[in-house]
Formats: sequence, C-alpha cells, structure tokens
Amino acid sequence: MIFTTADGDLTLYFVFASIILTSIFVIIFSRRMMKESTGNKEMKHLGGLIHKCAMQFLRTEYMYIALFVVVVAVILSILLGSISSVWFVIGAISSGLAGYYGMNRAVRANVRCTNAAKRSINEALRVSFSAGASVGLFLVMMGLIGLVSISLLYNDAHLLEQALIGYAFGVASIALFSRVGGGIFTKAADVGADLVGKLEAGIPEDDPRNPAVIADNVGDNVGDTAGMGADLFDSLIVNTVTAMIIGLGFTTGVKITGGAYWFPLFIIGAGIIATIFGTYFCRTKGNNPSKALQNAFVVTSLVLIVLAFGLSKYFFDNLAIFWTIVVGVVAGTMLGKITEYYTSYDFKHVQGIAKSSEIGAATNIIHGLSIGMRSTFGVIVVLMLAIAVSFWLAGVYGVAMAGVGMLSLAAIVMAIDVYGPIVDNAGGLAEMAGLDKKVRDRTDKLDAAGNTTAAIGKGFAIGSAALAALALLTLFARDAGITQINIIKTPVLIGLFIGALVPYIFSSYVMLAVGTAAVKIAEEVRRQFKTIKGIMTGKAQPQYETCIVIATKSAMVEMIIPGLLVIITPILVGVFLGAEALGGALGGTLVSGILLGIQQSNSGGAWDNAKKWVEKGNLGGKGSATHRATIVGDTVGDPYKDSSGPSLNILIKLTILVATVFVTFF
Amino acid sequence: MIFTTADGDLTLYFVFASIILTSIFVIIFSRRMMKESTGNKEMKHLGGLIHKCAMQFLRTEYMYIALFVVVVAVILSILLGSISSVWFVIGAISSGLAGYYGMNRAVRANVRCTNAAKRSINEALRVSFSAGASVGLFLVMMGLIGLVSISLLYNDAHLLEQALIGYAFGVASIALFSRVGGGIFTKAADVGADLVGKLEAGIPEDDPRNPAVIADNVGDNVGDTAGMGADLFDSLIVNTVTAMIIGLGFTTGVKITGGAYWFPLFIIGAGIIATIFGTYFCRTKGNNPSKALQNAFVVTSLVLIVLAFGLSKYFFDNLAIFWTIVVGVVAGTMLGKITEYYTSYDFKHVQGIAKSSEIGAATNIIHGLSIGMRSTFGVIVVLMLAIAVSFWLAGVYGVAMAGVGMLSLAAIVMAIDVYGPIVDNAGGLAEMAGLDKKVRDRTDKLDAAGNTTAAIGKGFAIGSAALAALALLTLFARDAGITQINIIKTPVLIGLFIGALVPYIFSSYVMLAVGTAAVKIAEEVRRQFKTIKGIMTGKAQPQYETCIVIATKSAMVEMIIPGLLVIITPILVGVFLGAEALGGALGGTLVSGILLGIQQSNSGGAWDNAKKWVEKGNLGGKGSATHRATIVGDTVGDPYKDSSGPSLNILIKLTILVATVFVTFF
Repeated sequence: MIFTTADGDLTLYFVFASIILTSIFVIIFSRRMMKESTGNKEMKHLGGLIHKCAMQFLRTEYMYIALFVVVVAVILSILLGSISSVWFVIGAISSGLAGYYGMNRAVRANVRCTNAAKRSINEALRVSFSAGASVGLFLVMMGLIGLVSISLLYNDAHLLEQALIGYAFGVASIALFSRVGGGIFTKAADVGADLVGKLEAGIPEDDPRNPAVIADNVGDNVGDTAGMGADLFDSLIVNTVTAMIIGLGFTTGVKITGGAYWFPLFIIGAGIIATIFGTYFCRTKGNNPSKALQNAFVVTSLVLIVLAFGLSKYFFDNLAIFWTIVVGVVAGTMLGKITEYYTSYDFKHVQGIAKSSEIGAATNIIHGLSIGMRSTFGVIVVLMLAIAVSFWLAGVYGVAMAGVGMLSLAAIVMAIDVYGPIVDNAGGLAEMAGLDKKVRDRTDKLDAAGNTTAAIGKGFAIGSAALAALALLTLFARDAGITQINIIKTPVLIGLFIGALVPYIFSSYVMLAVGTAAVKIAEEVRRQFKTIKGIMTGKAQPQYETCIVIATKSAMVEMIIPGLLVIITPILVGVFLGAEALGGALGGTLVSGILLGIQQSNSGGAWDNAKKWVEKGNLGGKGSATHRATIVGDTVGDPYKDSSGPSLNILIKLTILVATVFVTFF
Repeated sequence: MIFTTADGDLTLYFVFASIILTSIFVIIFSRRMMKESTGNKEMKHLGGLIHKCAMQFLRTEYMYIALFVVVVAVILSILLGSISSVWFVIGAISSGLAGYYGMNRAVRANVRCTNAAKRSINEALRVSFSAGASVGLFLVMMGLIGLVSISLLYNDAHLLEQALIGYAFGVASIALFSRVGGGIFTKAADVGADLVGKLEAGIPEDDPRNPAVIADNVGDNVGDTAGMGADLFDSLIVNTVTAMIIGLGFTTGVKITGGAYWFPLFIIGAGIIATIFGTYFCRTKGNNPSKALQNAFVVTSLVLIVLAFGLSKYFFDNLAIFWTIVVGVVAGTMLGKITEYYTSYDFKHVQGIAKSSEIGAATNIIHGLSIGMRSTFGVIVVLMLAIAVSFWLAGVYGVAMAGVGMLSLAAIVMAIDVYGPIVDNAGGLAEMAGLDKKVRDRTDKLDAAGNTTAAIGKGFAIGSAALAALALLTLFARDAGITQINIIKTPVLIGLFIGALVPYIFSSYVMLAVGTAAVKIAEEVRRQFKTIKGIMTGKAQPQYETCIVIATKSAMVEMIIPGLLVIITPILVGVFLGAEALGGALGGTLVSGILLGIQQSNSGGAWDNAKKWVEKGNLGGKGSATHRATIVGDTVGDPYKDSSGPSLNILIKLTILVATVFVTFF
C-alpha cells in the first residue's frame, strides 16, 4: 500500500465510507423508483416487451464482446503477464456491468414513469430521476471499488501502473463496442421503423402495429442508456487512472506520502457525497423540470467544490490542486453551455437552420454542417484555456486533476443523462398504450427538459476526453522512453497523418452501417406487413423479435471493422514506424477525433432541435414543407450525434491506452 | 548569381529557351481558338454578356484584393524591408494575371466551342482544349519568369530566400481570396438561379428569362477558371519555391554548384516542353474525348520523365533525385485515379449513393458523407508512401522535388481543368441560343469527359499541397531557429489544436456564405419577376447585372473573415505561444486541412455524379423521387467541392508561408 504516514489508513476510511454510503443510496433511489406501479395490463405488456428485448440485445452483444475479451486477455497474458490480463478482464466486466445496470434500471423506470405521469409532472420526474441517480451512483461506486482494490493490492509502482492501465484498457474497449453497437442498433431501428411504417404504411410513430416499434424503443435504451453508461464510466475510469499514475511521481507540496496518488479517489468520493446531496434539490413546484435538473447539478457542483477545498487543504501545502479541480468543474459547465448555445432552439443558430429549411433540405444540411464546424471554436477555446491554466497550476498532474474534477460530477451527469431516454420511452409507452393526451403532454415536457440538460453530458464527455488524452499522452511518452514527439521528423509527421485518418475511417464505417442496417429492417417490416394477415386490423401481433434480431446482428457485424481499426492501427504504426511516430499518430487521432466528434455531435443536435422548433409551430409547423426539410436534417444527424460522434471520445482514449499497453514491444 | 561552374550559364539557356518556346505556344494555341467564329447574333450577344460580366466581377474582386495587398505590402516593408514587400506585390499581381488570363481565354472560348460543336465533337474539343493549353502554358511561363528573375537578381542566399518567400506569399494570398471569392460567387449564383427560376417560376435551367442565368454562367468562369487558375498557379509557385530554397543547402551528389537550387526550374521547363508535345495527342477519331484528354496527359508524363532523366544525369551524381520526380508524377496520377474511384459513377461508391437515394435525401446525404470520409484512406496512404519514399531517397529536398515533379505537369493539368468550364458554358450557350439538340449532345459528351479528367486536377492539388506543406514546415523550423516541434509539450499541443481548428472555422464561414448569398440572389430574381413586366413573354430583358452585383458584393464581404482568419491566426499563436507552438499550429492546420479538404471535395464530387448517374436513366431517371433526393445531395456538395474544399489546399500553404514570413518577430 502506498500510504506511509500514520494518518494514512485513517483518511482512507473517507473512501470506504463513500463507497458504503453510495451503495445505500443506489438501493434507496432504485427502491423509490420501483415502488411506482407499472400501470394497466397494456402498459405492463409493452413495458415487459421492451424490457425483454433490451436484455436480449445486451446478452447477444456481451457474447460477442466476451469473445473479443478472451482473445485479448490471452494475448495480454502471453505478452505482458497476468496482471495486465486479469485487470483487463475485470475492467471489461465492470464496463459491461455498468451498461447492464443502467439499462436494467431504465427499462424498469420507463413504464413506471408513464404511470406516475398520470398524476403529475413532479411525480414522473421523481421516478425517472431516481432511476438516473441510482444508475449514476452505481457506476461511480463500481469504479471506486475497482480502483481502491488495485491500490490496496499492489505496493510496487510498476505493478500498480500495469494493473491500472490494464483495467482502463478493459473498460475503454468495451465502452467503444457498446457505444458503436448500441449506436448502430438504435439508429438503424429508428430509421428502419420510420421508413416503412410512417412512409409506406402510413401509420403513426410509436404504433404497436409496426413490427419495428419495439426495436425502436429498445434502441433508446441500448444506445442512450447502456451505450452512454459505458461511455461515462470509461471517462471516469480513464481520467482517474491517469491522474493516479501521474500522481505516483508527483510530490510538489504533497503533505502525505502517496497523497497525490490517492487524492483523485478522494475527489471522486467527494463527488458522490455531493451528488447525493444535490439529488434532493431536483424537484419542481411548478412546471419547470429543466430548472429542477439544473438545480440538482448546481448544488452538486457547489458542494463538491467545498469538499474539494477541505480535502486539498488536508493533502497539499497550497491550493494549486484545488484550483485545478475548480477549473475542471467550471470548464465542464462552460462546455455544456456552449453545446447548448449551438444546439438549443432558444438560440440563433438552430433557428437559423430552421429558417434555411424554408428553402429546402439542401440548405438545411449546409447550414447544419456549418454550425457543427463553427461550434468547434468555443469548445476548443475553453478546452485550451482549461489545459493551459491547469498545466500552469500543477503541470500534467494539474491537467489530469482538472479531468478528475470534471468527472467527479459523473454521477449527477449520468443521472441527468439517463433521465432523458427514460422519459422518451415513457412518452412512447403512453402513446402505444393509448393513455390520456395529458400524460403524453407531461412526458413531452420532461423530454424537452432532458434535451437541454443532455448538452451538459456531451460537454463533459468531450472535455474530459481531451484532458485525459493529453495526460495519457505524457504517460505514453514516459513508458515509451521518449522525451519528444517531434513532428518535424518525417516519420512522426507520417504518424500524425495516419492517426488523424482513423476518426475519419471509423466514422465512415459507422455512418454507413446505420444506413445499411436500416434498409434491412425496413425490408423485414415490409415482409411482415405482407405475410402476416391481420396486423393492420390489430388482430394479429407482429413478430417484434425478428426486427430486434436483425438490428442486433447488423450492429454486431458492423462494429467489428471500426472496433479493430482502432486497436490495430496504433500497434501497426508502432511496429513499423517506431515509438515516436506512434506518438505522432496518437496526437493526430486526438486532435482530429476531438474536432470531428464536436462537429458531428453538434451538427446532429442542432438539426434535431431545428426540427423540434418547427414542430412547436414555427415557420409553418408540423407537416409543412419546412418541417419535411428539417426531418431530412434530423435523420442525417441521427448517426452523427448518436452513433459515430460520441464514439470518437472513447476512440481517442482507447487508442492511447492501446499504445501505452503495447509500447514495450516497439 | 548562384552558378559558379563554367557550363552554368550555358545550361541556363535551357530555361530561357523553354520560356520563349512557351510564349510562342501560348499565342499559337490562343490563335487556334480565336480563329473559330463566335456564331450567330444570339450567340454573340449571350457570349458577349457573359464575357462582360465576368470581367466586371474580376475588376471588383481585384479592387478589393488590391486594398489588402497595399496594406500588407506596407506592413511588410516596415517590418521586413523592401525585398519582401516588393516581391509580395509582384507575386500578388502575377497571381491576379494568372486568373485574369485564364478567365479571359475561357469566356472567349465558350461561345466558339459552341459554334465548333455545330460541326463535330473533334472540332469543339480542339477549340476548348486549345484555350486550356494556352492558359496552362501561360501560367507556367509567368511562374518561370518570376522565379528566374529573382534568381538572377540576388546573389545572397538570405536575400534570395526573402524574395522567394515574399513572392510565394503574394501568390498564395491572392489565390486564397480568388478561390474563396470565386467559390462563393459561383455557387451562390448557381443555387440562387435555381431557387426561384426552376422551383418558383418553373422555367428550365439556362433559360435567358432568368435574371440570374448570366450570373450562373459567369460563376462557372470566375469559380472554375479564375479561381482554379490562381489555385494551380499557387501550387506551382509554392512547391517550386520551397524546393529551390531547400536546394540552396542541398549539396549531396550535386555536380554543379547551386545545381540543386536551379534544378526545380529546369524540371518545370521540361514540363512545359512535355506539355507542348503532349497537346498534339489530344484528338479523338471516334467519340471519345475522355480518351483524347488522357492520351495528352500520359504522353506529357512520359516525355517529362525522359527529360527529367537526362537533366538529373547532368545535375547529379546519382539518380535519387530523378526517382523523386517519378514518385511525384506517379503519386499525382494515382491520387487522380483514387479521386476518380470515389467520385465517378463508373464505380460502386457513387452508385451506392444513388441507390441510397431511393430511400430519400437523408440516406443520400449520410452515404455521401461516409464516402467522402472513406476516400481519405486511399489518398493519405498514397501521400504517405510518396513522402516516405522521396524522403528516403533525398531527405526533405526529395519530398520537395516530388512536389515539383507533380507540378511540372501543371500546364497539362490546367489545360484539362480549364477545358471543363469552357464546354460546360458552351452547353449552356447552346441551350440559351436555342441551337440544334445535337450541338448540346456533343457538348454534353465533352462535359462528361471533363468531369472524369477533372479528378486528376483535384488529386494534384491535394497531393502537391501536402508535399509542399511538409517541406515548408522544415523551412519554417529552420527560420524560426527551432530543432523540434514537440507535441508532448503542452503549449505545442495547444498550438496543434488551434491550428487544426482553423480549417473547420474557415469551412463553416464559407459554407454559410454561399447559403446566405444564394438567398439574396433568389430575392432579387423574385423582385425582377414581379416588377419588370414582359420578362416571361420575352418582351423585356431582365437586368442581369444586378444579380452579378449582388453575388459579387456577397462574395467580397464574405471572403474577408475567412481570409483574415488564415493570416491572423498563425501570427497570434506565434506572438502569444512562441515559435514552437506555432510550429504545432502549422502541423495541426496541415493535417486537419488535408483531411477535411479531401472529405469535402470527394463527398461533393460523389454527390454530383450520383445525380448524373440517375439522370442518365438509372433508378427512375430524371424527375423521379430518387432524382430529387440526389439533387439535394448535389446542392449540399456544391459549396463543399467548389467553395470550401479546394480552398483548404491553399489555406494550408498560406498559413505556413505567413508563419515563415513573420517568424523573425516571435
């Protein structure tokens, strides 16, 4: 164990206490949600169907992933020994569990949220947010358990690093596959359901006669909950691990030996306490769920900063590290605000896209692409300022701690993010079960609030990815034994280009996969309409499962090439061009992935909300030519913002982790 | 003068001879085109109108640019002395002349090509290709005169470099403004004319009743001829200048003192001779103009290689440099083939986009974006191989010489490229003047051939930009006195991000500018239809000039921000973060600009040809829902492939030049 001073063991109780506290609140929040009834027979049936199919998808996905995990684990154990291999597997399982728990709660919460919405917005908010809070806290708790276990098991810095990197590698690999697989599934089902259902058969969205409707609702869960859960868990682990490893060598002004190593875990613990505190401020007296979610977030941030101040005083001689945490929290919040500015219809850019749609779909697309590219400016400026300030405060450890500060809010961010797909599903269930219109109105209000606050999650994902990647790059260089990645050297510049290429090829495959899978689902829906008699009159039930199977298979097959691309490219560059060129490749992937990711996510978000703005009755409203043009943009934005865009954040970190794991062989 | 051996002055006659030879053939080819009649009264009138308005645009554009040139010249003369300043102005004027001459020939050739098409394809090909050859040779001749003058004027390496960089800076600045201004003009006029004319008034394309129809035809000239002329001239100058400066310090195996400095000019001279030879192979017996253009290109390449072999033997001890030239020629040709593979409807990708359009516009867009991203793979692989091999052969000088080898074909590439807009315009004139249908059929065949061969030009533009940029980066580092651009250092990584950001913001502004200007033109067309009575019956003539004025003004205003962004960003990074971080920024702009440029150009090209494939009668043909979906893609692709995409090649080189010019102040 790394602690050496007498009070070391004592302070560790803080972390243990926060783990125990969290486990209690995971159960409390979960119970609060489960208490709610699942409603009438129809609701129970539909909710159960979504639940069953979502779990079916996850089982299939995990089976495929397990194969990959076994292969990599064997390779790791041969090349690097058992520690890397074992912790890789544990990381992979943890990541899987994070996705599993998130989705399991979400598919139980959706129908309960619908039921609560029969009474009031506040009740529905309570159910959905409780589920989100339970998931968020579970994720962080699991991460803490993993990291504390490693820290207590190994006493040697080298072994510690090996175990931590292996663990992070496992988490990131599975996060990538979950994001890509889930992203392809959800968007393929979405587009496929609309293609034949809406356009050919002329039945409305969320109509239970559509064989792909359950797949569509399942998609919201596997993409937005399981995928995002794995994503945020990945951010949390990779950031914390990076800070811990850099902390091993950081001694400036540290009062306790090994303090800089343990400190990130304490901040994560503080974040949990702050989140539990904050969740109690998530309530709305009137009709403003958005305000309620924001209150919870703001209170959590403030409590965290207070706790971080105390902990910093205890661990360090000066407040430099404390300020890096503040930088992380402020930067994360600002990134959320910037994302909101470019993607919310309360601001001029999205309204501009909507106005361009009056001319047609083409101008809608041009405008949306342009806004996505424009949005990179604010994001990069904030990121660079955060990096510059935190680096100036405490070097690379400062940059890593800014990332940890940002990610200490992971639980509340996840709570807000998971809330979104739950209320989205709840609305679909209200529609399918034919409930009173005011139920759907209430869930729609909750959904709109979720759309705004989801921007926070996106900002955090991108910001933390950049901070972690920068710190990881330093780790890589140290492990590779290189003191420079000098892009004047031709091989390094070649590396830079190859690295920058990866996000493009990756996005290309993922985007195309969504299109291909959507067509397959559309064909199956068409087949069922033709061969199963009585579907249209409601006498016969469609075979929901076949659509799920098709979407699942497509997602599994199509995630292989982009997934392997990410893992194999750094290895090839390292083998053929050497460690420094590999460093160049990592830099290329970092910079190109961040920019492309921001552009894709924000173009997609802006198109989505331009459509919603028109649907609110602006510029002709639903059914107008302008509306049709915005639908084109929204559909293009779907794979951009939910499949390839967010995957790029994981891709960046995974690439650097792969390089760091295998670096000793180049 | 740099030569010191006895035979030095003698060999220089080779360059003089090639300049004189070129000037003769510039006149011969021009006369051959001018001999053709301008046809009947209607054709004369319309051709004259396009001619007049195109020149009007160029005058306005050059007035704005002159202002910029004066300001920069004053700043340069204060900061760096008169040499930089004077050659900057000369470079700017040369670039302007290149654009002017190109457009002047093109607007005279279009109507003559229409007239020749009355007789046969071969005659029309002769007229249009002669015009192209005259423009191509003129460009290279002017470049040679500028570079030889500098070389003979200064004897000191430092002064030589200052003059060459100043000259290149002038050329690149004006190339950027021409590309952006012309790109905005042409696409705004194109989209604006269609919006009201086709969609609202229901009159066909190229109908003389449309007030924006002349603006549209003028746009083809100012965008595709003047803009591209400046672009290719920029590639030629920047590549050659870079090779010459690096050649100053390159002495390995050089037989003649200063030989490595002069050698690039000899290769450019050889390229001219090869081009003159090659043009005589551009003829078609049957109906295959594409084959004729390709023949000309292949013969030129072969002759060039033979000449380069002889020259290399004379200048160097071994054949390393010769092989770098071969690498450049082969890489350029391969890049053209790759571009063709991803953007021609003879191959699966474009057909796939067309098939996706059966589902709708959204899938068309998704597929096109995906293919654009995918196409980066082949391009980057070829580029990296070219860089690796030429670097292995002769270091950075080898890389620069590969670029010169590629650009020695500039005259023939330009001839083929200028041919495109000429036959495009010729078709429009045939339509407007109501000529026999078979005339239009012939120009359409010529146009289709131009589309395929235009891919070669794009490949050359991207490839040479990357090679020049890499070599320039080395020059920058030397002048900045830095031996590394180490991206592990945080400020350098911040620079990398800022640099990579520039192409995104630049593209965002240019894309949006096209949309905004198009709407303004559409409003003017609508106004004229309302207020001028008798337009529709053909009794009153529309006011063509007002549309030209609007498009011109928009183009001028909207090119300011993106233009300044490119020039100011490197200066700011240098001032605030220092020379090494500026180096990082240059690397970032390079890698992000190349990738984004490839993606935009090829997505745009693929969409364009997917539409054309459907128009050929596939998947329902003209007027089908599939066709409408492909039109959306084509319109999105317009600013991608003709405004922002190709500008990025210039942007990259200009950024590095700005940094190199101002580096002494950081």
